[in-house]
Parts: sequence; structure tokens; C-alpha cells
Amino acid sequence: MRNSRGFKNMDISGKYHNIADWMDGSGPMSDIVISSRVRLARNFSGFPFVTRADRAKRAEIIEFARVQLSRPFNAGNMTLKLLEELTELEKNLLAERYIITEKLSRESGGSAVAVSENESMSVMLNEEDHLRIQAFASGLDINTVWERISELDHQIEQQVSYAYSEEYGYLTACPTNVGTGIRVSAMLHLPALHITKQIEKVLNSARDMHLAVRGIHGEGSEPVGDLFQISNQTTLGKSEEQILQEIQKMALEPIVEYERRARIRLLKETPIVVEDKIFRALGILTGARLITSQEAMFFMSQLRMGVAMGKISIPIKVLNEIMLLVQPAHLQHLCGDNLEASQRDQFRADLIRQKLQEYV
Amino acid sequence: MRNSRGFKNMDISGKYHNIADWMDGSGPMSDIVISSRVRLARNFSGFPFVTRADRAKRAEIIEFARVQLSRPFNAGNMTLKLLEELTELEKNLLAERYIITEKLSRESGGSAVAVSENESMSVMLNEEDHLRIQAFASGLDINTVWERISELDHQIEQQVSYAYSEEYGYLTACPTNVGTGIRVSAMLHLPALHITKQIEKVLNSARDMHLAVRGIHGEGSEPVGDLFQISNQTTLGKSEEQILQEIQKMALEPIVEYERRARIRLLKETPIVVEDKIFRALGILTGARLITSQEAMFFMSQLRMGVAMGKISIPIKVLNEIMLLVQPAHLQHLCGDNLEASQRDQFRADLIRQKLQEYV
Repeated sequence: MRNSRGFKNMDISGKYHNIADWMDGSGPMSDIVISSRVRLARNFSGFPFVTRADRAKRAEIIEFARVQLSRPFNAGNMTLKLLEELTELEKNLLAERYIITEKLSRESGGSAVAVSENESMSVMLNEEDHLRIQAFASGLDINTVWERISELDHQIEQQVSYAYSEEYGYLTACPTNVGTGIRVSAMLHLPALHITKQIEKVLNSARDMHLAVRGIHGEGSEPVGDLFQISNQTTLGKSEEQILQEIQKMALEPIVEYERRARIRLLKETPIVVEDKIFRALGILTGARLITSQEAMFFMSQLRMGVAMGKISIPIKVLNEIMLLVQPAHLQHLCGDNLEASQRDQFRADLIRQKLQEYV
Repeated sequence: MRNSRGFKNMDISGKYHNIADWMDGSGPMSDIVISSRVRLARNFSGFPFVTRADRAKRAEIIEFARVQLSRPFNAGNMTLKLLEELTELEKNLLAERYIITEKLSRESGGSAVAVSENESMSVMLNEEDHLRIQAFASGLDINTVWERISELDHQIEQQVSYAYSEEYGYLTACPTNVGTGIRVSAMLHLPALHITKQIEKVLNSARDMHLAVRGIHGEGSEPVGDLFQISNQTTLGKSEEQILQEIQKMALEPIVEYERRARIRLLKETPIVVEDKIFRALGILTGARLITSQEAMFFMSQLRMGVAMGKISIPIKVLNEIMLLVQPAHLQHLCGDNLEASQRDQFRADLIRQKLQEYV
């Protein structure tokens, strides 16, 4: 009975129209943790760091990687793309999908990315270091990510020599990465800590434990939709597996537990207030004909909490997908045009309704 | 799939659980006009005005009416109730249903009301005058109301002598009513004039034409839900029918026409913005688990506009009913208890969902 308009029959099949498997909500603690990521900073020995490489040298590094790493790239079903051959839109799509960093998406020449078919692994070439290797997994599952990334890392190391010092470990462009070169992060959804006004306290405790807290697109990005990227730079002196397990058990799982307790407390103390938030969010998301990105993320956050609380039955995968697809580049890609802001808001609203309509 | 709670299975059949026929949205211009009303101010000759009558005299006036007017009251299927025998809740219910004025609902002794079975007519005894006779009709239909009320007025005049002067006409407690003693009013729903920011201009023009503009409960009440009671005191010197027709044609219909044009303009110039308002309102009203009276009226107004614009199929009757039933006394009556504010908000939200669920 609800009226529908223009964009209703848009094509939403095809590449970049869906989420990667590692965002499908199937992993452990997916009620609270969207995904886990590990990235390694690596440099080839015999080449200057990226910061000191001119255009020709950067091209040489890429060519070196293309030839020397063809075996591991093939093994991982990975495709190499030169950033300069991509459109602005494609670069922004890759950044919204976490395949490349926002920093890399803004740079033009002399960089490349190898990405696996299922997008669970990518290798950026000439980002801050020669290689930035990334792997992802659904939910809070550092072990799985570690298995994926260390296998690729070993395969690469069989082909090339990394810049490495017995004293310092892996050598990197920025001193903060020297050593293991590992950064672990997880994307957490913390709406109940926000509602119960505990979020700052919990995030400050995380900072005290040397965890970095960021928005969904890393350094400098604002938190939206109660999503926080929480990450840790591993240090020297312990085995990598041990460090990673410690970060999961001692740092990330306690935050998940705080959020879980806040949700239980909300449901116990103010169940109607919570349901009111959740079902209003659903009502607005399925009713709106115009919605900004910020508003969409705000209500999607409450809806996601409602699903996690068992108040509404929508697959977490669908919610993760909406949260990805409402972002500017994906929206523009789906629509096939440069849209004005008000058209974007209309298209976003239509997309959300289309995705949610079978669940209401 | 949506979760339901406590009040879901409340009993909403029975007296005061439904609207009167004259609120059923069946009359002319019901897309914009809720109802039309005429009231007559009349006094018995041989009795002092109410303001100068003591307790005993007021009782005498009621007894006089009970005996002398039993024939017209019976003919009109009207039941007489002494205000002092009603509970506070019952008086508030009658006021919310327009059967008595808010002024009368706050007074205790020495007043009464006769109301017809279908609530389309009532006679207040010892409000400001001995008799305040009211009749209602659905939509903008002053003629029908006038036929109803003048028949009752004539029947009453066959039984008693009204205070009347050849020079001044009907004599009333307040000089503003002297003459015909007639007040005509209509309840208009003017959301598009509000959205297009023309409402003040239109209402000021109405005031220039000696129309009084008030909220839904008359003098001193604030407008809620874009509903305005627009009324005119008729003056001496013309026939009553002629005056009433002039008020409808020259004063009320032009306002209806302004609202209608504003709706057409909105649909033409900003269709998506209008649909966004309408379907968000529907989403919130069917999603909320807690809603204040003010918020409910705000969104019901937008929903009613959406229905009138053909964007949503819900009988106008259902909307008018919700707008009546969410008011405090009706809500308390439905619920059977003295509720706290937060419980009232919950009950109100449940009631609205229950009423709307079959149309979404």
C-alpha cells in the first residue's frame, strides 16, 4: 500500500552491490563486533621507503611486486590494480570496502592494490610502506584473520627479502610500526554504551590500555552509527600469536562484555524506552523518502541493536550491507550518476526501504 | 513480526470507545473539515440569568427544563444528566466529545446536559445561559446542522417562553450573544497552510472577517495537530438561513480552498518532501512504543494530510477516532485506571498501533 517511486527498480546485483563475506555477520560475537582485521607493514629490502621513492622508483617497486609476488597473488586468487588506472569513484568504492585506505584513495600515481576475489585479503603497494597486507574476518575472530594473513605473509617472504633487522624487527617507514609491523583492529557496534552514557568511560579505559579508538574509516574519521574501530599496535618481545590472543582476550572481549551488559541493563530497566527507540528507527527507515547518510547511520545503529536484542528478525548481514551501501561512493555507483544531495537522500531512502521491506 | 506488549488486548468496544457519527468523515469536504457545529444561546423568560441565579434557583431552572422539555428531549432521543452526578472522568469525556464545554466540565453543581443517543445534539443547562443548544454534522455542512438545531429550537419554543425582545432579539447573559444567539463553527484541518507558512496570513484574514480562530477545545485552547476551530457570531438584521449560508460560502469555504491549493502546490513542487513527511509520520505512529499526546497529534496531522492526498488508504473515520481517543480522558477511560504519564504514553502508542495496524 505504501507508495513507491523512481529508484524502486534499480539494479542492485553485481560487483560492489553486495558486501564481502567477512561482513556477513556470521562470525563470533557478530551481535556486537562487525569484523576483525589484521594488517602487516612490510618493506622490500633493496628499495628506498615509499616516502623517499620518486615516481620512477615507485613504479619499479610495483613492477618488482607484480613479478616476484605473482605466485602468492595467484594462490590467493588476488588481482592487481594500479591506482592510477582507477576512476575516483572506483577508488572511493575500494576505500568504503576497506580494501584500500582513505589515504591511498586520495593519492593518484605510483600505488597499487592486490585484492582477493572474496575481498578477505588485500595488499596495498606503496601506501605508507611498500606492502600493507590486510586480512579480514567476520565478528571477533583474530585467530582466523591471523591464520589468513600469516600464510600470505610467509608465501610472500618465500619470494622476496623483507627489510628486517635482528635488533628492531621489521623496518617500516614510520617508527611506530617498526618491530612486528602488526596492527590488529576490530569494528565494534556500541549503541547501549552510548545510550547509558558509559561510552566515553569505556573508550578512555581502552585508550589507557594503549588501544586506539577511531571512527569507521580509521584515523581522523568521526564515529557514526555507534561504530568504533578499536585497534592495537603490537610491540616487540613476545610471540605474535601470544600478543594477538592477549589483545582479543584482555582488550577487545572486555569491551564487548561491557556493551553486552549495558544491553541487558537497558532491557531490564527500561524495556519500553528501548523498544520505542528500536521500532521508531524501523518505522522511520521504512517510511522515509529522504534520508541523510548521518540520519540513516543513526537509525541503522538502533535497528542493529534491536536485531541483536531479538526484538526484530532481520539478518545481521542485511544490516551490515545497508550500512555499507548507503555510503556516498556505493550510493553513486548503484545509481550510475553524479547525484545532487537531495537526490542522494532520496535514493538512499529508496535503497533502505527496498532492503528492509521483506522483513517488516 | 513486530513485538507487542501489555495493553495490546485492551477492550475498545463500548460507550466512549468510539466516535460519534458526526466525526465519521462522511460529510462534505471531510478531507479538510472535520465537523460543523451550530449552537444557540437561549434563556427562559421568568428566571434570572445563570450568573445571577443562586444554587436553589439553578436547581429550579433544571427542574423546569426537565419537566417542560421532556417532549422535545424524548423526541430527540435525549438523556438528561446532572453534572453533579457525574465523575470528573465522565465530565472530561463529555468535554472531549464536545457534548459539554470545558467550562461546564470544570463546574460542579447546578448544571445539566441533555444529549442525544447519537451525540449529534446536546443541550447544556446553566452553562452561561439557561440553554446552550448544540448540533453537529460531519464535514462542512452548516445547512444540515441548521435543520437539526432549528427543529429542536422550535420544539423547545413550543413548550416554553424564551427571553426575547422585539428590539434586541434573544436575550443572553453576555451581550455578544444577544440577537440571534447563534454561533456557527467548523473544525478545520490546515496542515498544508502550516507547511507552506501561509497559516498566519490566512487566519489573520479570517479574523479581519470577524471570524474567531481557536484550538480544538475553543476559547483559550492552543491549536494542536493543525486543527482550528473557526467560528462566527451571527448578527442582527438578516434572516438566519441567509447569514449561515453567507458564513459557509464567504468565510469557511475560502479557507478550505486555500488549504486545498496549498496541498496541490506541495504535491506539485515538493512531492518527495511531502511523501517523506507522510510516511515518516506513519512509520513513527506504527513504530513508537511511547508517545506523548502532542507528538501523536503532530504526526496524526501529517498522516491525515497523506490520506486526504491519496498517498495512504486509511478511512478518515479511523484517523478522527484516533485523534479523539488519544486525548487524556478517553485514554484514561479506555485503560480503566489513573495512569502515570509514562504509562499513558505507552498506552497511547499501543492504541495508535492497534488502530492503524490493519492499514499498513
